[in-house]
Amino acid sequence: MSEPQFVAVDWGTSSFRLWLIGENDEVLGESRSGEGMTTARETGFANVLGKHLSQVQAPDDLPVIVCGMAGAKQGWKEAGYIDVPARLSDIPDLSVRIEGEARDIRILPGLAQRDPHASDVIRGEETQLLGSSRKMKSSDCLVAMPGTHSKWVRIVRDEVLGFATFMTGELFDAISRHTILSHTMKDSPGFDGADPAFTNAVHSALKEPELTTNRLFSVRARGLLFSVSPAEAEATLSGTMIGLELAGALKSAPKDTPVILVVSGKLRGLYEAAFHRVGLKFSTVDADDAVRHGLSHAARSIWSL
Amino acid sequence: MSEPQFVAVDWGTSSFRLWLIGENDEVLGESRSGEGMTTARETGFANVLGKHLSQVQAPDDLPVIVCGMAGAKQGWKEAGYIDVPARLSDIPDLSVRIEGEARDIRILPGLAQRDPHASDVIRGEETQLLGSSRKMKSSDCLVAMPGTHSKWVRIVRDEVLGFATFMTGELFDAISRHTILSHTMKDSPGFDGADPAFTNAVHSALKEPELTTNRLFSVRARGLLFSVSPAEAEATLSGTMIGLELAGALKSAPKDTPVILVVSGKLRGLYEAAFHRVGLKFSTVDADDAVRHGLSHAARSIWSL
Repeated sequence: MSEPQFVAVDWGTSSFRLWLIGENDEVLGESRSGEGMTTARETGFANVLGKHLSQVQAPDDLPVIVCGMAGAKQGWKEAGYIDVPARLSDIPDLSVRIEGEARDIRILPGLAQRDPHASDVIRGEETQLLGSSRKMKSSDCLVAMPGTHSKWVRIVRDEVLGFATFMTGELFDAISRHTILSHTMKDSPGFDGADPAFTNAVHSALKEPELTTNRLFSVRARGLLFSVSPAEAEATLSGTMIGLELAGALKSAPKDTPVILVVSGKLRGLYEAAFHRVGLKFSTVDADDAVRHGLSHAARSIWSL
Repeated sequence: MSEPQFVAVDWGTSSFRLWLIGENDEVLGESRSGEGMTTARETGFANVLGKHLSQVQAPDDLPVIVCGMAGAKQGWKEAGYIDVPARLSDIPDLSVRIEGEARDIRILPGLAQRDPHASDVIRGEETQLLGSSRKMKSSDCLVAMPGTHSKWVRIVRDEVLGFATFMTGELFDAISRHTILSHTMKDSPGFDGADPAFTNAVHSALKEPELTTNRLFSVRARGLLFSVSPAEAEATLSGTMIGLELAGALKSAPKDTPVILVVSGKLRGLYEAAFHRVGLKFSTVDADDAVRHGLSHAARSIWSL
C-alpha cells in the first residue's frame, strides 16, 4: 500500500464524501455521510471535515482538496466562479485556501456563464468535467451530467464553451410529491429504463416538448378513463421530464455531436436507455470516478505531486 | 324582484358557490364557502348543500342544478362523462339525479376524450363552455379556460371536437413552493401582466418551449451572478409556464383561430397580457358569469323553465 498523498472531498448540498488518496490515485480510505453543506452550516465545516479525516486516519499535514457546495457563498468559504469560455486546466489555479487552518485546505471554483439572457452556474460538476477530460477523444463534445439539476456542457478542444442546467430531477420530485400525479403514482414499486412507458415518454417529449404539461395531466386522465399502474405513471413522468431535457440540451448542438454521459446509480440505466431510444452516440463515465479523478488532477497540479 | 325558479351550484374541489336564480337569470341570492368536494366528503354533501340552501331561503320544492367535482367518482354521485366529439346541447340531457332526496337535485356530466394517446377529462368547465356558447360567433374557435388545470377546447359549429389540459397553475404552485426557486421568489410582493419580465418569459417559452426547465434554473443563476428581485423571479416563472401552455395549446389549431378566454380574478390580467404579447385574436368572458349562465341554460332545458 502506498503512502497517502492528499485527501479529496466532494462536498454537496446534502452529501459528504472523502477519499484518502495515494500514489497513482490509489484509494487508501473512504468516509461518507449526509453532512452536506446544509448540515455543516449548523455543525461547522471544520468539525465535519475533522471528524472524517480522523475516520481515515489522515496525517496532520496532509493537504485537502475540496469541490462542491462548500465553496458556495453560503458554504465554508466562497470559491467564486471562472467565467466561460474557460479551459478546464484553469480550474486548479483558481482554488481558494481556507485561512486559519494548519493544514492546507483548498476549495475549487465553479463555472459561471455570465449572460443575462442565459445565466447559469456550475459548482461541483466542473470537477467531474476535469476528471472526464481523458475520455474526450473528439475535439467537440457534449458532456451530460444528470441529476437534481442536470448539466449539459459543450466542450471544444478542452475549452468549455458554454453550458445549460435543466431542473429535471428537482421537477420530477416536486411533481411526483406535490401535484395530482402523486395519487396516480402512489406506492409505485419503481420502474427501469427497459419500461416502454419510460422510453415512449422520452421519445414523445423530445418530439413535442410543448405538450409536456398536457402529457402529465393525460397520465391522470388515462387512469380515470382506462387504467394506469403507479409504476407506469412514474415511468411516464420520468421519461417526459428527461425527454424535455434532451429536447433543450440537443437543440443547439451540431447533429451527431458525441455525448459523454457522466452518471452513477439508478440514473445511469435511465439515461442510457433514453439515449439509446433517441439514437444518441454516447459513452458513459462513472460520476463517482469522475469527481475523484478530477480532484486528484487538481491536487497534483496544485501541490506538484 | 322575480320568484326564484331554481338553484345553481358550482361545486369544485375546494370551493362551493350557490346562486338562487329567478326569471331572466336574475340572481336573487348567493352563498359561497370553501366547502368543496374535499370538505364535503367529510361533512356530507347533503349537509353542505342544505346549509347553503337555508342561507338563501330557498323554497323546499325548488330544483337544484349542480356542476363540478360533486359529480366525480369520489364526489356525491358519479355523473360520468360525455365522450367527444360531443354537442354542448347534449350536456343537460345526461344529468344524473340524486336519489333519496325530496328535492330534484341533478348533477351535470363532464367531458371525456377517450384516446389512449391523448386521454383527457373535463369536469365543471363543460358548464362554462355551455354558458359561453353565445359568444362563439365564429364557426371555429378555441376556448381557453385557465386555472390550476388549464383547459383548451376546440369547438366547430357548437360541437366539441377535442380538448387538452395543461397543468399550468398546479406546476406554478409546486415549483414556487417546492424547488430552489422558492428562495429566489421569497416574499415577492407580486406582479401583474404589465411586467416585462412576465411578457418576455411568455414570448420566450412560446418560441422555445424545450428550454423551459433551463429558463427556470437560469432565474436562480441570474440571482447569483447579477441580481433578480423576488417579483421578477415570480413573473418569469409565471410567464414561462403560461408561454409553455400557449406553445402546446396553439400547436395544432389553424393559425388565426379566434380564442375565447373564459377567466376571472388575477388570471384575467395575466392571460390577456400574454395573449396580446403573442398576437392572439381573442375576446374575454367572465368565468363566474359563464358557469352561472351554463347552469341556467341546463336548468331551463331540464325543467322546461
